[in-house]
Amino acid sequence: MDPATPTPAHLSAEELAEHDRVVAALTGATRELAEAQALTEVDLDEAAAVTQEIEALTARLRASARGGPLGAELGPDGTTIRNHGNTVTGLRNPIAVFTAEHRRVDEEKHVHVDVDLGALYEGPPGLVHGGVSALLLDQLLGESAAVGGGPGMTARLTLHYRRPTPLGPLHLEGWLESSEGRKSVVRGEIRDPDGRVTVEAEGLFVLPSWAAEHPAWKGRQQSFE
Amino acid sequence: MDPATPTPAHLSAEELAEHDRVVAALTGATRELAEAQALTEVDLDEAAAVTQEIEALTARLRASARGGPLGAELGPDGTTIRNHGNTVTGLRNPIAVFTAEHRRVDEEKHVHVDVDLGALYEGPPGLVHGGVSALLLDQLLGESAAVGGGPGMTARLTLHYRRPTPLGPLHLEGWLESSEGRKSVVRGEIRDPDGRVTVEAEGLFVLPSWAAEHPAWKGRQQSFE
Repeated sequence: MDPATPTPAHLSAEELAEHDRVVAALTGATRELAEAQALTEVDLDEAAAVTQEIEALTARLRASARGGPLGAELGPDGTTIRNHGNTVTGLRNPIAVFTAEHRRVDEEKHVHVDVDLGALYEGPPGLVHGGVSALLLDQLLGESAAVGGGPGMTARLTLHYRRPTPLGPLHLEGWLESSEGRKSVVRGEIRDPDGRVTVEAEGLFVLPSWAAEHPAWKGRQQSFE
Repeated sequence: MDPATPTPAHLSAEELAEHDRVVAALTGATRELAEAQALTEVDLDEAAAVTQEIEALTARLRASARGGPLGAELGPDGTTIRNHGNTVTGLRNPIAVFTAEHRRVDEEKHVHVDVDLGALYEGPPGLVHGGVSALLLDQLLGESAAVGGGPGMTARLTLHYRRPTPLGPLHLEGWLESSEGRKSVVRGEIRDPDGRVTVEAEGLFVLPSWAAEHPAWKGRQQSFE
């Protein structure tokens, strides 16, 4: 339950940037493959041949690998949290749909993210899976809480589905509404390309006592990478 | 917004089963690759070389491919819904963590699913992303509504996070609590390996008027594949 493991000490900041660049490209390629295999209509022999090639690549990547999940690392500056396995934002996670560079914080500390959801995020035909909307909003609200000065883990999340959310480009906005002690109330929404709100969320986020004194969480207004 | 497209008419039931077997193997291989690339510690040259090979495989799969999301198909029997792109349960979706065969319905029509969440479903270090719990529960509640006789799309979803959810094996249970007209109230929960509830969910599911008369939804107690 340790919220952060130290950055690999043997890498300089430059080496770390190069390392991140290469693993991000690997992750991006895997993400493209994942969508391509969902949509492919090649014949079955070719599909089976590609399957074998993928298995061979998996074996090559496993030749040297961590035994468990990525967890969190502190960045070289000692304050940025590197959470590269995160389902929604992880640099090394092909499921992830936005990273820190997609996020914009406005002057009122509202967090804005543009995403573009493809075939792998489908629930009802042509529409974003309701649970995917929840997944993205949970991450957005957690970030909005942190940016607003009241970081924490999700204690309660309520989602109101106002209209169907189409696959494709969407805009997310989240903001801290109020904060008291270790508790924060956060709101957020998803808008379709016509600017209509499709899903609204309200979350209660609480900073666990074990995390309140840990360097990875203590900073409040912490930045996430 | 059409909830179902017809099954490829040129495939017999046997050919369809063989087709499903091959694409499921392709999806499974992609899922393994996705985890391997997140955890790999091979040197950067090898990571870059594997990236290029993945890109070549993606090109092979794209040689013949659908232009858009998978949507839903009616199965050969005309009642089963094939929703193979679904983020949580899709046969062709490497993000998916359970398929119909993992689901058990008990004598009270409660839906039970065992999942095993790996590194790609991480939020806080070592823990399941709160949004992933929401994603799985949304799907589970939707299925529980359908199994209980009140199918619909998510209108409201509330999640109570009772304690951290560890990565690894988890048990999900969902059930229809009440149903009136096109509205259903559904509940569900996630339990850790010690049987403790980590997340509780309550959902309001509503059958959209456009779907109420469509063959893909009309059956109520519909089975999902």
